[in-house]
Amino acid sequence: MAHDTLAGNRHRGIPRQGASPHALIHAIHGTLADFLAPQIASLDAIDPALGRFARTARDLVLAGGKRLRPVFAYWGWRGAVGSDEPVEPALPAFAALELMHTFALVHDDVMDESDTRRGRPTAHRIFAGHHRQDGSIGDPEKFGTSSAILIGDLCLVWADQLLARTPGSPAVRAYYDRMRVEAIAGQYLDVLGENQPGAWSVERALLVARHKTASYTVQRPLQFGCAVADASDERIDEAYGKYGLAIGEAFQLRDDLLGVYGDPAVTGKPAGDDLRTGKPTALLMLARKLATPAQRAELTLDPAGAVNPADGSGGLTPAQVERRARVITETGAPARLEAMIQERVADGIAALAGAPIHEDARAALIELAVRVAHRPA
Amino acid sequence: MAHDTLAGNRHRGIPRQGASPHALIHAIHGTLADFLAPQIASLDAIDPALGRFARTARDLVLAGGKRLRPVFAYWGWRGAVGSDEPVEPALPAFAALELMHTFALVHDDVMDESDTRRGRPTAHRIFAGHHRQDGSIGDPEKFGTSSAILIGDLCLVWADQLLARTPGSPAVRAYYDRMRVEAIAGQYLDVLGENQPGAWSVERALLVARHKTASYTVQRPLQFGCAVADASDERIDEAYGKYGLAIGEAFQLRDDLLGVYGDPAVTGKPAGDDLRTGKPTALLMLARKLATPAQRAELTLDPAGAVNPADGSGGLTPAQVERRARVITETGAPARLEAMIQERVADGIAALAGAPIHEDARAALIELAVRVAHRPA
Repeated sequence: MAHDTLAGNRHRGIPRQGASPHALIHAIHGTLADFLAPQIASLDAIDPALGRFARTARDLVLAGGKRLRPVFAYWGWRGAVGSDEPVEPALPAFAALELMHTFALVHDDVMDESDTRRGRPTAHRIFAGHHRQDGSIGDPEKFGTSSAILIGDLCLVWADQLLARTPGSPAVRAYYDRMRVEAIAGQYLDVLGENQPGAWSVERALLVARHKTASYTVQRPLQFGCAVADASDERIDEAYGKYGLAIGEAFQLRDDLLGVYGDPAVTGKPAGDDLRTGKPTALLMLARKLATPAQRAELTLDPAGAVNPADGSGGLTPAQVERRARVITETGAPARLEAMIQERVADGIAALAGAPIHEDARAALIELAVRVAHRPA
Repeated sequence: MAHDTLAGNRHRGIPRQGASPHALIHAIHGTLADFLAPQIASLDAIDPALGRFARTARDLVLAGGKRLRPVFAYWGWRGAVGSDEPVEPALPAFAALELMHTFALVHDDVMDESDTRRGRPTAHRIFAGHHRQDGSIGDPEKFGTSSAILIGDLCLVWADQLLARTPGSPAVRAYYDRMRVEAIAGQYLDVLGENQPGAWSVERALLVARHKTASYTVQRPLQFGCAVADASDERIDEAYGKYGLAIGEAFQLRDDLLGVYGDPAVTGKPAGDDLRTGKPTALLMLARKLATPAQRAELTLDPAGAVNPADGSGGLTPAQVERRARVITETGAPARLEAMIQERVADGIAALAGAPIHEDARAALIELAVRVAHRPA
């Protein structure tokens, strides 16, 4: 097969499947950069401060990351249209998911008070830095938070504008809207869980994983891509639905493990970040369920310890985080989670069998399933 | 003329123009309530905590307010289509502007740390209250802020979903998108101005007023309504553009005056709220320009006084606010602003002359111009 699965993209000549993950990511990057340039120019023309604001948003969008949502949308689309359809008209829709994701990340980072993302300062930290450089009055942190809220808002609106450049059926918007509502609702449950750890359970953590991550990261992007293809086949939609939920949950369970045991140099996030904030992940909930009474006492959140009285920020100390990670390992929960991930990868791949999905896409989705379940970051 | 300008609305039989402001507001309310009910039900089905979250959003949306943006959109539309067109198919588009406005208000209130809006607690205060009632752990204020960010996000997405229910040309979305970007950009300049009062001027304050309030509140809603009519006439679009900018600026200048001299019992906001936060409004900038050296010294922001060291919140004390309001009056700036408002009302009304706008709408827009420029709240 010597044809180009990304044929039609004017940004670069793209070799075929073997190299296509990078080629696809470049094409998404080019689509985003082309869209953002005139948006920035028009804001800059109103006031130079708005130009700087918009350029900061652009840099966050283009900073990279795995571009997982556009990638799943692309393969969802490719699986429905086959290898010959030119991708260019669909690229804005796929790239829109990345802009929408930047919105979600920027707002999540404000809520989680995260300092770094993808190894770089988060939006609110960047703007707090601008505030200090400019010698402004008032509280730099507050200015950073306000600016980051607005950066997220802007990215959500931009996403919408970019999406409108791909002509599509109402089904495209329907999946897009579900994805957005689910991401917001899932994040609310995440925040709530950190504040009500006593009311949380393995089941509720898995519910959050399903509605926040699984549908938002894998299931809806695939179904969205299929809708963009405008060649809707119920069997494909159903296969994507099952695959997406299984692989999306595997993705979140891996995220739980990386949030405790990940290498900060690779994940770009501080070590043990989830433990610091007390996030009631499936990993922590399972550990508490499997724990001996002595271990459970160690794992039960101490409200006094969960809030730093000095500045009101949430968080265990690094020493508490390290100890807690060790206790979690001793409960056997991480090994159990690994088994759950394996099971979901197998289920997801099995769901693709029998559906009329184009072979290139099926192969790519199988590879992606394994990759997201075993990623180091 | 005995026909019904809101004909076709199934929510209630609506008498004609004299009573129509109320009838229109009821129709918008009904459209919002009908749209929100199933959204809430579907979130409630996922988790009862999400139901409570969504109901809080609904209550904020339905709490009222002047519904100015839907009202301007309605008259922009009516001015293009005439009296006989049934309004029902267009109501979702008009109501969408109110959902979008709730998004903007909720996020603005987070950034301004406002405690009340429309005489009721703001979103972040409501959720901080839930946190306390639930006996949750962690910081109630932080939980309130995170929840309010998500409430705003949800309203923005809902607005989009509701808008999609009115079939429309790309021009509808184009105006809608401009409105959203302008609102976000204007709010950023607002926030920046509070942090860089030294870099502000009457001109920059008027620029913010134009891009944030005037276009967002009056100009774009009118042009959006005209686009919904799908009967675009350049003369109407141009007349709306000029009227909208003039009346929108008058609206913002009145807002400046109300922010200092408004009656809290009527505005629903604390007295002198703008002075407390140090917002560099056109009123304050003009006062500083007209001030004697002694008055200017009083009006120059004291960075130490602008941030409350106890909790990091911005704000002058009530006594400082009262004194500053008196000094502003003495500079003559409020009287100058009143004259600027008059001038803009006259310009706005003049811009409607000669354009082929339906007479009912012209009469309503003239009445609205006077009303928004002289509103008590």
